[in-house]
Amino acid sequence: MGTTLLILSKLESEYAALVRAAALPGIDEIRTSPSPECEVVLGEPHRIRDALAQLPSLRWAQCVWAGVEPLVDPALRRDYALTNARGVFGGLVAEYVFAYLLLRERRVMGRLEAQRGGRWDSAITGTLRGKAIGLLGVGSIGAALARAAKLFGMRVLGYTRVREACPHVDGFFHGEGLLDLARGSDYLVNTLPATPATRRIVGAEVLAALPPGAWFVNVGRGSAVDEAALVRALEGGALGGAVLDVLEQEPLPAGHPLWRTPNTFITGHTCAPSFPADIVRLFADNYGRYLRGEELEHRVDFERGY
Amino acid sequence: MGTTLLILSKLESEYAALVRAAALPGIDEIRTSPSPECEVVLGEPHRIRDALAQLPSLRWAQCVWAGVEPLVDPALRRDYALTNARGVFGGLVAEYVFAYLLLRERRVMGRLEAQRGGRWDSAITGTLRGKAIGLLGVGSIGAALARAAKLFGMRVLGYTRVREACPHVDGFFHGEGLLDLARGSDYLVNTLPATPATRRIVGAEVLAALPPGAWFVNVGRGSAVDEAALVRALEGGALGGAVLDVLEQEPLPAGHPLWRTPNTFITGHTCAPSFPADIVRLFADNYGRYLRGEELEHRVDFERGY
Repeated sequence: MGTTLLILSKLESEYAALVRAAALPGIDEIRTSPSPECEVVLGEPHRIRDALAQLPSLRWAQCVWAGVEPLVDPALRRDYALTNARGVFGGLVAEYVFAYLLLRERRVMGRLEAQRGGRWDSAITGTLRGKAIGLLGVGSIGAALARAAKLFGMRVLGYTRVREACPHVDGFFHGEGLLDLARGSDYLVNTLPATPATRRIVGAEVLAALPPGAWFVNVGRGSAVDEAALVRALEGGALGGAVLDVLEQEPLPAGHPLWRTPNTFITGHTCAPSFPADIVRLFADNYGRYLRGEELEHRVDFERGY
Repeated sequence: MGTTLLILSKLESEYAALVRAAALPGIDEIRTSPSPECEVVLGEPHRIRDALAQLPSLRWAQCVWAGVEPLVDPALRRDYALTNARGVFGGLVAEYVFAYLLLRERRVMGRLEAQRGGRWDSAITGTLRGKAIGLLGVGSIGAALARAAKLFGMRVLGYTRVREACPHVDGFFHGEGLLDLARGSDYLVNTLPATPATRRIVGAEVLAALPPGAWFVNVGRGSAVDEAALVRALEGGALGGAVLDVLEQEPLPAGHPLWRTPNTFITGHTCAPSFPADIVRLFADNYGRYLRGEELEHRVDFERGY
């Protein structure tokens, strides 16, 4: 007997077409609404959460995003394998982060303003070479950032719970070492998942430890940041700039001070979209493991939360 | 008897201090104005040109820039070794080029406009991955661009006279193949030196061959571009954008249409400044060769012009 695949996504028809094109063995039916016989589900975590009660046969849920917060709520069932999307976002996040780091060093905004005024601006430029990037989290996204940073001649500092396996990292920091990492970072980039341990990890103390004029980039989760402290650091000028793809509340509410703090870029959670073709490749690969009864890749630890 | 080094630069005191700190053997004196005994000169090409008549003992001139046009004029003497600065600009040019390529893909300007209007802009982003970059010239600068392009998952096309030695290039084009390269390039980047052969190489025909919406970046020399054709391509919308560090006339004259053509960035010849520490490292290395009577690195061929 074959498998019924349930797709729960705002892009359900695109995902269904890609899964059909992949011609995965044993998938008898693709559904887009829950039914009791569904064993496997592919979709966005909040949609999967809303369907959990209607999926008595659920054995495996593959999320199309990296963040799976809606599903690791301790009140919910954990009697199935949960996998997230990993390894497909690193390149996109590197494009995003370096777009803004280079924009800053190359004085893109200042030169554009000069141009609009008809002024030939030949003021010298900055360079990433020799500057330090501090990465909060050195999983697959941190690794992609470290690799790009090395290409541009930067020093790379990495903050991690335990593991020191990430290549291209010049120095690892743990626990209280966070402040030492901050002191050495011209750019601080948060890639951490939302967990109780990462909540407001970037607060007044970390921001104050950064060198004057440093920039902060958040591509992880908004919960990692004390936004009131961030606004103060930006308005006081101690922090040179902030690039915020994620925020405590999304969309950022009208009237929130971050809309208007100086040198702040708000980018609407667009840093690393899940391109369905990437996700279906990852799903097809994991589906092979599922059929063969092997351990799935990118398995989420419900306790740890990622 | 030792060597008298002549430094002819707007940064003469910085260069002199760095050369002194390098403690090069046999340099008896560092001068900043020409005298008959000077054998070796380090400086900007136009300043060296102006001093040529006062330097009867000149044996070697090391330019601090890549471009040496003022010194390859056929009317001038060629009885000395001319070397330029090479191999130190690749990283800087890569920072510049990718700043603007990423700015375009990540819709940085559009998102900033949304932010200023208090709008949460979650429109999907572009990506460099899978796009093609066409490099006019694949010397050391082209090689640095090709390497960065590969990091971002791009295809790399290279236009060169003869040599096909540059790594990270997926396809080489020569002569009339220029139009084929243009047809396949989402981004066309000129890195060529100013020579009679490269004059207006980017004209109406090449611009028309680019895919609709392609961008053109010039980090070589302004003479490579037919600026009137470029303005027409930008105003007509066939060309998506242009990033111009160099122009036919610099500074760009007041009232020139390129100040106001759409999607055009004018950056005042700031792409790859000669940082004196880099140049003195290169000079010290070449000075060792000079002392030992070896062939100098980065020797300019007066006929070829680079």
